[in-house]
Amino acid sequence: MATGTLVSGALILFLVVFLVTGAGNAINDYFDVEIDRINRPDRPIPSGAASAKGVFIYSAILFFSGITLSLLTNAFCVAIAVANSILLIWYAASLKRTPGAGNAVISYLTASIFLFGGAYAGPDGLLVVTPLALITFFAMLAREIWKDAEDLEGDLAQGAETLPIRIGVLPAVRLGFLFLAGAIFASVVPVIWWGPYYLAGIACVDLLVLWVGIKALGCKTAACLKKSRVTTLVKYAMFLSLVVFAVSAVLL
Amino acid sequence: MATGTLVSGALILFLVVFLVTGAGNAINDYFDVEIDRINRPDRPIPSGAASAKGVFIYSAILFFSGITLSLLTNAFCVAIAVANSILLIWYAASLKRTPGAGNAVISYLTASIFLFGGAYAGPDGLLVVTPLALITFFAMLAREIWKDAEDLEGDLAQGAETLPIRIGVLPAVRLGFLFLAGAIFASVVPVIWWGPYYLAGIACVDLLVLWVGIKALGCKTAACLKKSRVTTLVKYAMFLSLVVFAVSAVLL
Repeated sequence: MATGTLVSGALILFLVVFLVTGAGNAINDYFDVEIDRINRPDRPIPSGAASAKGVFIYSAILFFSGITLSLLTNAFCVAIAVANSILLIWYAASLKRTPGAGNAVISYLTASIFLFGGAYAGPDGLLVVTPLALITFFAMLAREIWKDAEDLEGDLAQGAETLPIRIGVLPAVRLGFLFLAGAIFASVVPVIWWGPYYLAGIACVDLLVLWVGIKALGCKTAACLKKSRVTTLVKYAMFLSLVVFAVSAVLL
Repeated sequence: MATGTLVSGALILFLVVFLVTGAGNAINDYFDVEIDRINRPDRPIPSGAASAKGVFIYSAILFFSGITLSLLTNAFCVAIAVANSILLIWYAASLKRTPGAGNAVISYLTASIFLFGGAYAGPDGLLVVTPLALITFFAMLAREIWKDAEDLEGDLAQGAETLPIRIGVLPAVRLGFLFLAGAIFASVVPVIWWGPYYLAGIACVDLLVLWVGIKALGCKTAACLKKSRVTTLVKYAMFLSLVVFAVSAVLL
């Protein structure tokens, strides 16, 4: 029996995400082989578990399977699957040597899962999930930058180049605050669909987020930021905004 | 506007998985507070970022939101969301002190994502994805046990109790082989739907898996297992069986 009707859209989307992510990991191993030979000798290629050519072919098979499978969904989802594949290859080949690029790529890829799920329902679905994707992207980006600021000393000792190492802790903290403010703005948009009840719920979360952001702004050093626990609090707030979004989607 | 029609099933399923998983992490932090105070002082409760009571309430909100949201899907998906929630609470409260339970729970939770996606399409969808869930469960369980066998010395030094520490490396290696054989058996089942082309594809992967299993069986020590790279190879094989499954779902 053909499974187009039996294997649900949710499973197909999950498989596409799984395959494209796996392909991205493999192509990263392929491009990183010289660095891994020194820093990560346990990785598949340096350890001899796989040949570089084999990993390249394996990655190509996974990208091809993921994109082929996305053809069962719709044009929006295919576009996202193709865009994410290109981004993963670009990141592995060169983008990751730009400080901050890793933070942005991870934040986008996580946010794109929401876009992917919404796009499956067509243009209207994509529209509804876009604020959620923007909240996720901005809040994760702020959190990633602050986490890098917290890890400054360890990263310096290891010779890694992160955004806070490049621009300094205080500018990084302020940049993170700007992104967090972006998340707050994005979170207000769904008020146009869900009205005052949503507004009441999201306002509580946004006040928490604002308090976290102001707390972080008071820090000029990595130690201060670590002690303030703002990265943990942002994680909590992200989940809570998801709860408000989810409850609104059910009730309103 | 109500979003039942706009926010697609895929996104709802993703949110349910996200919320229930987040709830499971939080309840684990709640029950682990005494151990974390010594081993993981950076976790939210020992570090003072959150109160134990606050984390408990936060976890309850996430479980409640996840299960409430699952009511938008169907009875199968609700049953899986409830079962996974109970399992996560049971695991955090007591099950994790049983060696091997962690391996089994992680393997089941990963496999259950496939069940969840299939169940959304109803009984027939659930039937089609069950072999894939079983392959994932068995192969991950074998891999988790072998990974614990590889980490024997480090775990012993840290006073952690894993299955290979309890039963010995060789019995653990053999147990892993049995689970891997279970994955091979499960992988053959879809032949009844997809016929000889699927059989040809999955036979290639299964021969690789069998070779990996026989390679592992030759090891009596953690060092030998590590050197054999069998855990990396099982990971590759899991992805490849997913590719065969995905391609069959599209073409057959």
